[in-house]
Amino acid sequence: MKRTKLRYGMVGGDLHAFIGRVHRQAIAIEETAVLTAGCFSSHVDKNQECARFYGLASDRIYKDYHEMAQMESSKEDKIDFVTIVTPNVTHYDIAKTFLEHGIHVVCEKPLCFTLQQAVELERLAKEKDLFFAVTYAYTGYAMVKQAKKLIDDGYIGKIVNINAEYLQEWLIDDIGNGDESTTKLSVWRKEPKLAGISNCVGDIGTHIENTVAYITGLKLIKVAAVLDTFEKELDLNANILVEFDNGAHGVFACSQVCAGHANGLVIRIFGSEGAIEWKQEDPNYLYVTKKGQPMQIYNRGMSYIGGRAALLNHIPSGHPEGLLIAFANVYHAVIQVILKKENGEIIPMEELDFPSVSAGVDGVKFIYAVVESNKNNSAWTEV
Amino acid sequence: MKRTKLRYGMVGGDLHAFIGRVHRQAIAIEETAVLTAGCFSSHVDKNQECARFYGLASDRIYKDYHEMAQMESSKEDKIDFVTIVTPNVTHYDIAKTFLEHGIHVVCEKPLCFTLQQAVELERLAKEKDLFFAVTYAYTGYAMVKQAKKLIDDGYIGKIVNINAEYLQEWLIDDIGNGDESTTKLSVWRKEPKLAGISNCVGDIGTHIENTVAYITGLKLIKVAAVLDTFEKELDLNANILVEFDNGAHGVFACSQVCAGHANGLVIRIFGSEGAIEWKQEDPNYLYVTKKGQPMQIYNRGMSYIGGRAALLNHIPSGHPEGLLIAFANVYHAVIQVILKKENGEIIPMEELDFPSVSAGVDGVKFIYAVVESNKNNSAWTEV
Amino acid sequence: MKRTKLRYGMVGGDLHAFIGRVHRQAIAIEETAVLTAGCFSSHVDKNQECARFYGLASDRIYKDYHEMAQMESSKEDKIDFVTIVTPNVTHYDIAKTFLEHGIHVVCEKPLCFTLQQAVELERLAKEKDLFFAVTYAYTGYAMVKQAKKLIDDGYIGKIVNINAEYLQEWLIDDIGNGDESTTKLSVWRKEPKLAGISNCVGDIGTHIENTVAYITGLKLIKVAAVLDTFEKELDLNANILVEFDNGAHGVFACSQVCAGHANGLVIRIFGSEGAIEWKQEDPNYLYVTKKGQPMQIYNRGMSYIGGRAALLNHIPSGHPEGLLIAFANVYHAVIQVILKKENGEIIPMEELDFPSVSAGVDGVKFIYAVVESNKNNSAWTEV
Amino acid sequence: MKRTKLRYGMVGGDLHAFIGRVHRQAIAIEETAVLTAGCFSSHVDKNQECARFYGLASDRIYKDYHEMAQMESSKEDKIDFVTIVTPNVTHYDIAKTFLEHGIHVVCEKPLCFTLQQAVELERLAKEKDLFFAVTYAYTGYAMVKQAKKLIDDGYIGKIVNINAEYLQEWLIDDIGNGDESTTKLSVWRKEPKLAGISNCVGDIGTHIENTVAYITGLKLIKVAAVLDTFEKELDLNANILVEFDNGAHGVFACSQVCAGHANGLVIRIFGSEGAIEWKQEDPNYLYVTKKGQPMQIYNRGMSYIGGRAALLNHIPSGHPEGLLIAFANVYHAVIQVILKKENGEIIPMEELDFPSVSAGVDGVKFIYAVVESNKNNSAWTEV
Repeated sequence: MKRTKLRYGMVGGDLHAFIGRVHRQAIAIEETAVLTAGCFSSHVDKNQECARFYGLASDRIYKDYHEMAQMESSKEDKIDFVTIVTPNVTHYDIAKTFLEHGIHVVCEKPLCFTLQQAVELERLAKEKDLFFAVTYAYTGYAMVKQAKKLIDDGYIGKIVNINAEYLQEWLIDDIGNGDESTTKLSVWRKEPKLAGISNCVGDIGTHIENTVAYITGLKLIKVAAVLDTFEKELDLNANILVEFDNGAHGVFACSQVCAGHANGLVIRIFGSEGAIEWKQEDPNYLYVTKKGQPMQIYNRGMSYIGGRAALLNHIPSGHPEGLLIAFANVYHAVIQVILKKENGEIIPMEELDFPSVSAGVDGVKFIYAVVESNKNNSAWTEV
Repeated sequence: MKRTKLRYGMVGGDLHAFIGRVHRQAIAIEETAVLTAGCFSSHVDKNQECARFYGLASDRIYKDYHEMAQMESSKEDKIDFVTIVTPNVTHYDIAKTFLEHGIHVVCEKPLCFTLQQAVELERLAKEKDLFFAVTYAYTGYAMVKQAKKLIDDGYIGKIVNINAEYLQEWLIDDIGNGDESTTKLSVWRKEPKLAGISNCVGDIGTHIENTVAYITGLKLIKVAAVLDTFEKELDLNANILVEFDNGAHGVFACSQVCAGHANGLVIRIFGSEGAIEWKQEDPNYLYVTKKGQPMQIYNRGMSYIGGRAALLNHIPSGHPEGLLIAFANVYHAVIQVILKKENGEIIPMEELDFPSVSAGVDGVKFIYAVVESNKNNSAWTEV
Repeated sequence: MKRTKLRYGMVGGDLHAFIGRVHRQAIAIEETAVLTAGCFSSHVDKNQECARFYGLASDRIYKDYHEMAQMESSKEDKIDFVTIVTPNVTHYDIAKTFLEHGIHVVCEKPLCFTLQQAVELERLAKEKDLFFAVTYAYTGYAMVKQAKKLIDDGYIGKIVNINAEYLQEWLIDDIGNGDESTTKLSVWRKEPKLAGISNCVGDIGTHIENTVAYITGLKLIKVAAVLDTFEKELDLNANILVEFDNGAHGVFACSQVCAGHANGLVIRIFGSEGAIEWKQEDPNYLYVTKKGQPMQIYNRGMSYIGGRAALLNHIPSGHPEGLLIAFANVYHAVIQVILKKENGEIIPMEELDFPSVSAGVDGVKFIYAVVESNKNNSAWTEV
Repeated sequence: MKRTKLRYGMVGGDLHAFIGRVHRQAIAIEETAVLTAGCFSSHVDKNQECARFYGLASDRIYKDYHEMAQMESSKEDKIDFVTIVTPNVTHYDIAKTFLEHGIHVVCEKPLCFTLQQAVELERLAKEKDLFFAVTYAYTGYAMVKQAKKLIDDGYIGKIVNINAEYLQEWLIDDIGNGDESTTKLSVWRKEPKLAGISNCVGDIGTHIENTVAYITGLKLIKVAAVLDTFEKELDLNANILVEFDNGAHGVFACSQVCAGHANGLVIRIFGSEGAIEWKQEDPNYLYVTKKGQPMQIYNRGMSYIGGRAALLNHIPSGHPEGLLIAFANVYHAVIQVILKKENGEIIPMEELDFPSVSAGVDGVKFIYAVVESNKNNSAWTEV
């Protein structure tokens, strides 16, 4: 009998964890996967409490991810995929373990901290023929998909300039006053051993890189970056010149010290025939211009929206779809391709519409190149 | 042992029904109620298919709502509440039946078509001491709650003028060309027996009335309305003068023939000390002005947001929360008060923060007054 | 020899008068008329000081408008037109005097206070074959002209609903507190003998009426109005249902007590095929929607702008043209038709593109109907 | 007797010249200077026609600027300043000539093409004790002055990041198709001998540099730039990393090939306590944020506007002031300081509020540094 629902497990995501809850909500919105197993906390009581609240059978709650991967992989009704929502520094080991046990993986971003780790995960997923998604959720927004479609269709011609930014305010009190009491930055984010070689570029700069890559299909080949740390260990502000494989230049700016901005990811793609602008804080609209003509405001859900943006429409036009639905759309693609695989169906290329481990690898490469360029007096550095 | 989760049932909402899915998704986001029983379709096979897909036990799927109400009410682990997502014309009978069997009710809007029915449901819920929510979901948005809080706090002083509108485009092809082939309006909406005495005012005008009442706490006492039917049976466009119990006047405008608008609910409240504006299509922001000062853009999730708007914050500021979360917030309040009741806890007034059957009654009164005024040459008519 | 420049006179407009200066600036922008005569102040010294500063010949400065009209009309090089920028209550007598002496008139709005006066001026201008402009300057904006053109061209089909408003904040302190010390309203505006029968509707409601009439070409036939005086003599807030000669309904809302708005004239015209929106505070853009298609943002000065909006383009697209240029555009039309008349040329109908005395008459009719309706419990009242 | 009006002359600016007309209009708006002499065209007949139309005395029209400078400087009632609105390549010689004859100069931007010329003009103006303004008109906008004031007052703390751009669409057809027939770029702009070493950076990049310098008071010390010429001689697109003397970094982006933008100068200044954003296409507003608080929209003309932004307010709040008034404000400062000098009054520093020849020198330095950096593989280059 054809399967219509999957079982999934979660590592991390106890009752008070924000991002784990978002993942469960996004999957619940899809109605096609059921939380079946988990290791939500290293604290035994908390772990049990989660299991009860999430409605898990008592034999599907595990003391650690090793046990979970091993036990689940041996079950008849094992979980189809695992969602990893633990601290970043643990992503690599956990993902590797589940891959080795033959279980598809969805992992929060950033994927990991070193290029070797990233490449190893990519290799392993390929070797095991498993799906591996990294939840760059912004690419799940319908209008991001519409932007991609318009560019794929040649609507704006050859891309000639890209201006993208991700501005936040929340770490503004970390600016060089040396007063540790005011910072909102988690301690681990300031510690390179736990946070990796970059804070701001790693956390939000990678979203610029990933969203631009998704929309344009262009490959970023060089960066020239200047980072500001304001006397802290890691970067809080970055301005980056970029060059793509088609010769186009542009700017990526990301910051956690820009007052007035919360999650201000804004992508502007300029082509020889027109331009497209998308704003994460206003995600249901797309600002589209053909040269010489009035700017048009595309509205999600209208009849002129096509491709996967139309397919993934949840609520009628004019009723905002927010970040949860973008997340759900990423899971939609992951779940549907696993279901097709399970059911022995052919998977069309366009349905592999989720950020994969390769996107995670590109993110790590981007971070390394930016940090290297900054060290080298902003010299152009290959990605 | 203290309960932390509820069981709920659904009437209507088969696999292809849009609004039923929205309700399930909204409840799933809350993670505090589990779909346990249902009667999703009058078609036996479809009903069974839903039961399987939604993961129901085989003895919790019913052939009709009578059976469902009767059987469930006799169970030890009966459903705590029922969600009614059937065609409008059936709301009254179904809601009445579950109330009579002692089960809390959540009902899609509009509640029903006659004032007698509405008042009867209100009476019955009171008599049985049951919660009865009507899903005017817009009042679930965090920033609508912030607007209410600012006005409750006296931030804009005494309210002196209210300008509110709900504009849509989707029925523009129904304008007086007599060509039935182009209409997008469901047949039942054109049939007063199924749709009630009003189309546009009933469908979207009531959202203006409800949202304004929620935000301001004012009572609407008189209307002077002019409706346009464009040679169709029911209204497609309405312009309404309004008077509130504090003496303030204003305008409510609603339309389904206004090009460029999808779900353009916009509420503007003007007071003696300032003003507040909220837009459903841009729901995470609130435009707040103190007289003589710059307009301020309040952003959901920031530290200056207070009251229930802060409490119901799901995702950090700058990550849009859409209609699904507004729906979830309505369910949050319903579920929490039922849980408190079940657990014998005291329920603070401010936690009864969902649109109740009384709001449904007010909606019906509003529709009747508007239609009456229009018939009477736009004379002022008491609500 | 063909004339390329006119001579004009001014009544009112001393060195400290705001609106007189605006008129001089607007005419100066046109570079086609020179201030040649005047009676700027009833105070002799001030009048002389103005004459010197404005560079007038000593024999072209007059002690009152009677003398001015008489003397100028007898000169070989007499002024071609007079601009009247005195207090409203004096408009009628001054305008009448210049018309009687055969001099074209440009008069600030409102034209006058009674319908009889308005009609008399209209009659006199016609009898004398003189041009008479009333400076409803908003119709001079290029994008208002583009809106008119699109509607004339049938771009939005048959007009079915009109929603227009003019909101201001500046008199908010006049709301019912009885404290005369806080009011910003000039004393004369509170005195019906000086201000006429209406304050808010007379001052800004007429701009709604005039701009809508200009853009749509529709005739307003009935109003149903409710006015709020907040215990003052005259209205400060108005909500008005309107009916046009093609059967369309709509709402006009005007107020001087709406916090957050300065000169918030917003005109939205909805038709069977599309819609148009224009905002006075954002005047270089026009928001145009064809049904079923994305909203388009027309930008002044682009190649797709046509008709008189293109002709009257002063500065390249993207460089804002403000109110002064709207004023200049009104004067452009007045000056050009006078020049053509002087040069014996034929004047095409479309070049009579300025608000005439007839528009002034319509404004007075509108005020009277609104005040009458309000007195009569908001009954529909013919304009 | 105290002078209240000046006489000015114009070089360039015949009847069909756009920018010359803007200068005359801006001066006319001020009402404090009269066009008295000129050399508007090298074509004798055109020059005479201009003189007649502009109302000049026959002995104040000159065949060339040499004659004009010489003759005027010898008159009792000589012109007080000259406005130079000729092609860029001629600015230097003309400006130098009038300075040498002791006449104050207002010159269109760019000042000139080489650093030596710029420095020579600066030196000469100082030596002769003459005012020399370069019409970077954007600094004349009231809200640009308000931005400067807020930053001067410390409202946003220490500046930590600057993100500024000037995007245009108009040369998009020049992108690498080699088809000369489609270009809108004047021939002379493509010719380095006439246009200087840069097109896009020289024309609009300098506006970014100048406006940022004016608002922030910071000195730009280094740039790292990448320019795109799309196979043309000169740049059409530029992305530039910048470093200021207080250590702050940022990005300047300018382009003439970005669809959807007309004169999209946008300045965003981020400080340790808040942020300010100003947009040239929406010039009457300023977006101001204190960290942790809602963004505020400052509106020109309101009572909370202070300093020179309040002083230079022409029209009440809510009535847009456009580019012409920004130009007029530049002339206001120039004319007022000349009047004070003529009248022997002391000139307070803050009244020297116009872009001076030194700003012109800075602009040339900026262009040179950007072009140099681009040649040098985007290496950081001192300005």
